[in-house]
Amino acid sequence: MTGTGRGSGGAEAAPASQQGMRRRNLAVVIGVVAAHGPLSRADVAGHTGLTRPAVSSMADELIGRGALTETETAPSGRVGRPGRALALNDRGPAGLGLEIGVTRLAACVVDLRGEPRVWRRVERANAGRPAGEVLAEAAALGAEAESEAAALGLRVEGRVLAVPGVVPNEPGGLVANAPNLGWQALRPADHWPDPDTAPEPENEANLGALAEQWYQGNPAGTFVHVSAEAGIGAALVIGGQLFRGARGFAGELGHLPVHPEGARCACGARGCLEQYAGEAAVLREAGLGRVGDPVALLAERAGAGDAAALRALDRAGRALGLALTSAVNLIDPDGLVLGGAYAELADWLLPSIRAELAARITVRPWTPEAVRPSALGRRGPVLGAAWSTVREIIADPTRLPAR
Amino acid sequence: MTGTGRGSGGAEAAPASQQGMRRRNLAVVIGVVAAHGPLSRADVAGHTGLTRPAVSSMADELIGRGALTETETAPSGRVGRPGRALALNDRGPAGLGLEIGVTRLAACVVDLRGEPRVWRRVERANAGRPAGEVLAEAAALGAEAESEAAALGLRVEGRVLAVPGVVPNEPGGLVANAPNLGWQALRPADHWPDPDTAPEPENEANLGALAEQWYQGNPAGTFVHVSAEAGIGAALVIGGQLFRGARGFAGELGHLPVHPEGARCACGARGCLEQYAGEAAVLREAGLGRVGDPVALLAERAGAGDAAALRALDRAGRALGLALTSAVNLIDPDGLVLGGAYAELADWLLPSIRAELAARITVRPWTPEAVRPSALGRRGPVLGAAWSTVREIIADPTRLPAR
Repeated sequence: MTGTGRGSGGAEAAPASQQGMRRRNLAVVIGVVAAHGPLSRADVAGHTGLTRPAVSSMADELIGRGALTETETAPSGRVGRPGRALALNDRGPAGLGLEIGVTRLAACVVDLRGEPRVWRRVERANAGRPAGEVLAEAAALGAEAESEAAALGLRVEGRVLAVPGVVPNEPGGLVANAPNLGWQALRPADHWPDPDTAPEPENEANLGALAEQWYQGNPAGTFVHVSAEAGIGAALVIGGQLFRGARGFAGELGHLPVHPEGARCACGARGCLEQYAGEAAVLREAGLGRVGDPVALLAERAGAGDAAALRALDRAGRALGLALTSAVNLIDPDGLVLGGAYAELADWLLPSIRAELAARITVRPWTPEAVRPSALGRRGPVLGAAWSTVREIIADPTRLPAR
Repeated sequence: MTGTGRGSGGAEAAPASQQGMRRRNLAVVIGVVAAHGPLSRADVAGHTGLTRPAVSSMADELIGRGALTETETAPSGRVGRPGRALALNDRGPAGLGLEIGVTRLAACVVDLRGEPRVWRRVERANAGRPAGEVLAEAAALGAEAESEAAALGLRVEGRVLAVPGVVPNEPGGLVANAPNLGWQALRPADHWPDPDTAPEPENEANLGALAEQWYQGNPAGTFVHVSAEAGIGAALVIGGQLFRGARGFAGELGHLPVHPEGARCACGARGCLEQYAGEAAVLREAGLGRVGDPVALLAERAGAGDAAALRALDRAGRALGLALTSAVNLIDPDGLVLGGAYAELADWLLPSIRAELAARITVRPWTPEAVRPSALGRRGPVLGAAWSTVREIIADPTRLPAR
């Protein structure tokens, strides 16, 4: 055995530089204003430990880049003249989120504070339609949202597209596979009318998880976000960071074997979660066809006490509980979040999910409340898509052009 | 919905400072020497992008702290006088690894290059013995190893103790639970004869995974390391970092429900992996009692073609394959490593593990070779314990006292 040459203990780091230091401190200043603002320059110094002159230099640059504004504050209880306070600019840089779902298109623009300012949503049956046609419609919806945002003084700095498919960890914006749309090895940019506004695609479950994290204001949390559109997706947020897996395939909860000798899945394996808790399986078990908005229909039937719908949702919840037992044992999250369609069906899914987890998670502390529905429901992915640009700007405001 | 105050997108970072920059650059220099050394100062500058004077200043400090040495190199093919080269010091700082297993105690000292220089290992039945007695023996073994290391010019800078139990994410060195030793809520430091040499406990599966990573020289890899001692443990290495979970319970593979309505487990749940692939279950299925070294006995029987042993290992492999299908679907690792006792039984476990994975992992690329036995086997945890100190020194050499 030899140890030589195996000692670096981590990827080789780039050396630290003066520019890197300034970039990091710009992020520290905007991060503190985002978390605690509006704040005076003195308060920013107090929060960060940076000197007053350093804070002023950073603040001036952030104002110059359009990220912060400085406004007169109302006189506080303290004696003296009214101060000036730094705040995130709500008439400046913004993020555009787009979504191509199986049954809808959506667009949303958020400002730097994370506030949604423009919404667009249209029902569309996108499964099996030519991808170019779907993408052109999405681009038109995005352009409408951008011009409405421009009228509010907002300037879109980044565009992200939520898709119900696998987006590998590689540059170039490839959607490897979106079975419910009928897409395979497709780059949305290749079909986008205007190359300058082509969005970066990302898996909708991942974006739903980022939205949940942002909305909860828990920047360092570790949780599993489970959502359902036509398929079942899960996303892992670890210490505040989305974990995409070695190649971008993490969170494939729908193909965990919950009943190893059970029903044959479309994927070829047996007893996958999707055969018990996927949309098609639940609708079949509930005796319903796939018409209109199946999630709303299921909720309506279950709410009215329909026995088949209740049985289908209970069976789905038990299967989800089994798969989530594996997730909890492997990942040890702080909590589990039911997003997307599952959030809207949570009243009927939660009891059986919680019962399975309570019976099966015995070697660690666990409380039923650790599983909860998302407040964002089916809006999560498009919000997450819009927020991801804002999140990147706040992590590195030098992404904004200096003015 | 409000976005204000939720915008920081990550835990609040500390501002960058001149000291922080120097610390980081010291780590960059030692990291490059660890990965590519011996290297001249000019070569270090070339690898890192740091200036020659900066490299010289860092190198002098690292030599002063005992982390590097500078030696005359043999004349290379190039014209000119022989150069001097920086290398990791093999007569300086070192790490002590200790292990308390169910049937043994072990100690190991590694130098900064990661080379094991001292080994100690004794067979001991530790289950159910008074913890104070076991810990005193481990301390004596560690002291012996340290004095042998001192005779080689090595100075132990950190001590880590591998235990087959849960070590939560909190300071204070608590072992929450080590059922196979009979420990509960125990702090090894409270029973250690000399407080100055009390080691930091860590779960043995986690240390086995770190050892594997070090040994493979894959500093940014993402893999799941599965090992078995009396229980089943798994550890997740994500992008080169050990992932311990929100509270330190990640990797509890032994309690994944592989057959939801199956055998009742000691944990209270049904159909846990441990009931099919745990040591007790495999020995029972193979018709063997728990005598001497059960792993060696199983390997001997299976090697001789004993039908019951082969059946027991095949059943264990299939159950492991089911649990690992869940791990692959959730985490998307580059690979899976069988460590500890499983490494020594890999000839009989691998075929059924690989067959299950091939049949069940259908929605992503997967090759049978992605599952492989560890070359370290049961030495992994104690090596990982020793290496973890060296790893920390290389990540931050200012941990070493300046001289």
